[in-house]
Amino acid sequence: MKAEILCVGTEILLGDIVNTNAQFLSRELANLGIDVYHQSVVGDNPKRLLEEIKDCFKKVDMIITSGGLGPTPDDLTKEIGAKFFNKKMILDEDTVNKLKDYFDKMGRSYLKGNNMKQAYFPENCIILKNDYGTAPGCIINENGKILIVLPGPPREIKPMFSNYVLPFLNNYTNGTIKSRVLRIHGIGEGEMAEKIKDLIDNSKNPTIAPYAKDNDITLRITARAATEDEALNLIKPLEYKVKAVLGDNIYGYGDTSMEEVTAKLLIDKNLSISTAESCTGGLIAAKLISYPGISSIFLDGAVTYSNAAKMHRLNVKKETLDKFGAVSEETAREMAEGIAKTSGTDIGLSTTGIAGPDGGTPEKPIGLVYVGLYINGKTFVKRLQISGERNRVRNRASVSALDFLRRKLI
Amino acid sequence: MKAEILCVGTEILLGDIVNTNAQFLSRELANLGIDVYHQSVVGDNPKRLLEEIKDCFKKVDMIITSGGLGPTPDDLTKEIGAKFFNKKMILDEDTVNKLKDYFDKMGRSYLKGNNMKQAYFPENCIILKNDYGTAPGCIINENGKILIVLPGPPREIKPMFSNYVLPFLNNYTNGTIKSRVLRIHGIGEGEMAEKIKDLIDNSKNPTIAPYAKDNDITLRITARAATEDEALNLIKPLEYKVKAVLGDNIYGYGDTSMEEVTAKLLIDKNLSISTAESCTGGLIAAKLISYPGISSIFLDGAVTYSNAAKMHRLNVKKETLDKFGAVSEETAREMAEGIAKTSGTDIGLSTTGIAGPDGGTPEKPIGLVYVGLYINGKTFVKRLQISGERNRVRNRASVSALDFLRRKLI
Repeated sequence: MKAEILCVGTEILLGDIVNTNAQFLSRELANLGIDVYHQSVVGDNPKRLLEEIKDCFKKVDMIITSGGLGPTPDDLTKEIGAKFFNKKMILDEDTVNKLKDYFDKMGRSYLKGNNMKQAYFPENCIILKNDYGTAPGCIINENGKILIVLPGPPREIKPMFSNYVLPFLNNYTNGTIKSRVLRIHGIGEGEMAEKIKDLIDNSKNPTIAPYAKDNDITLRITARAATEDEALNLIKPLEYKVKAVLGDNIYGYGDTSMEEVTAKLLIDKNLSISTAESCTGGLIAAKLISYPGISSIFLDGAVTYSNAAKMHRLNVKKETLDKFGAVSEETAREMAEGIAKTSGTDIGLSTTGIAGPDGGTPEKPIGLVYVGLYINGKTFVKRLQISGERNRVRNRASVSALDFLRRKLI
Repeated sequence: MKAEILCVGTEILLGDIVNTNAQFLSRELANLGIDVYHQSVVGDNPKRLLEEIKDCFKKVDMIITSGGLGPTPDDLTKEIGAKFFNKKMILDEDTVNKLKDYFDKMGRSYLKGNNMKQAYFPENCIILKNDYGTAPGCIINENGKILIVLPGPPREIKPMFSNYVLPFLNNYTNGTIKSRVLRIHGIGEGEMAEKIKDLIDNSKNPTIAPYAKDNDITLRITARAATEDEALNLIKPLEYKVKAVLGDNIYGYGDTSMEEVTAKLLIDKNLSISTAESCTGGLIAAKLISYPGISSIFLDGAVTYSNAAKMHRLNVKKETLDKFGAVSEETAREMAEGIAKTSGTDIGLSTTGIAGPDGGTPEKPIGLVYVGLYINGKTFVKRLQISGERNRVRNRASVSALDFLRRKLI
């Protein structure tokens, strides 16, 4: 089965929003072994939308759309889908009742005007419940063509897909594509590609593909097979070979993040942590706290942006700041030790650096960041030099600080 | 001029990455008044890429590609572009020298293997310097068809576009599309759409379109005219009408954010701030610190995740925690006052809440967040009830906390 992902919305063509739905749907279809040949985006324009649906159905068997289901007048995807299949639009009483309940619960009394539009569907379609919003989706399945119409908001489309579209699609999959994603930090993309060049060049099934993301590099090993187990068995030997080359630079697998990996390590080892951040300004704490269950080991964090706060909160010595400066190995060391001591934690993790756009000097250029790590009575400091603008420096510094901790924990 | 944005990369079709380049390019072209008819994505597959280029050039005059310029063997966009235009690939000595310099600077000695691929270009093309990476882009312009080939990494494509593609495109624009984006917080999308329904329904040029983002709602007023000034003059009267309806729910204009708006207000009024965060865990501090120049007024932040830290760092009373709980109006109040007092700042902003997935009770459900705000001797507390999963709750809480502060500042 070949599929096209068709996102609808002038706001996407104008660049107002990032199309995360295309990513979500692509990943889900890949997991099902359904080939996504193409992603495309058209505006909220009935004529062009109809043309696109016609064109796509010449090439693929299935189109999944997102967007254009809302209450505003330019939301037209259902209507155009009905037109393509020559269907009338019919009022669905169940949906009317759910809309009434929803607006009652929200304390808004009206069910009028545009909101009613969301209760009309192409006749004989499968209606897909929207558990997180007011606009249900639908599936039209006729003459070997399947049109799956889903809402635009990410927090609506994801549960609708998982709960109602997946069971439907399971009837249409034949074989599977499985992937194993290796997440990498601490080595450049080019250097890595060179190191595993032979593996990349000589692998057909599975294939291996590197790509760089904002804060790390990912390697995806992808196998196609009749069953999931067969695919996974194809992946394993290649994964071992990659691991032999890249070692500890591989920090995790699949849909994880440096903060999740580090948080899990801390929880497993039952090591409590506190953070003292200057240039990263709360990003390390925010990242760690994004992980549920962190409250057992994350006790305290300080965002000591001013020198006064560094002295007052962390007992960094005035002489240290005067002699070496706020951005120095010595200050990073005292910050890490200070936060661990004043919080009573096993670990103290600190950052101090120059994120820019101002404040750089020839000796201490923009992008210079020191990471301090106090752990079990010892303190380590790592010097980073990060290129790019302010928030890239801050983000990379926070991920690299967590990576520094991770490597000490494993 | 009609354009298509064509992003190349199997990693996009597999859902490994979000296609932010399509957004960036769309926005830039909209500003130039160039119509983006379509966005599409194809994989790293030479045959399908060539087909897509052929198909697109039947409908549009210009294709801008991103991706497929790197050193790995599956990067083929330049080569396929050359094939479409029947061009040879020629080695560019300038690029060879720059690659050498780059690798020397990085302390990597080799310029070998795949890296050399990046120095070959279709003959007679315009080479676009890459100031932030190793892969230059290029423009092929022949027989009324323009192919602009750009790299995939966002931090490379953006400066390349601004510095080298924009001056080229200025020769091809005719009229302009201008937009004014109003950013909104504190009102639901449906409620807002209802309030400005007449304006939406009766506006043709400019048009007005609402859409919801993760943490706020945006309204875009878009006018098409011969000149920028004319377009802006068309926008103004409609903008006034919208403002009259939505008032202070409009927190900013254009490509801004709640943190930027709030940071600017604080700096303008020269009010110093400190933060005390529990459930948001550093997000408010991290958001404020993303704004350059914040160091003059952001002095100190605490991520007091544990009760011990709340008492020790912020002087929250044990009796308050015992009697009302960590998630309570009273604790939020003492946190805000405590951080302001211990930091000596004009303002103290605090959050305490239940982000989930655990910890909810019937009285204090998941999503309950109290925001405390100490300002000029008075303390205010706002109760929020946010739906969704852990990190949605944390994000919305941090934005709503900043909005609470913003409304007190204006």
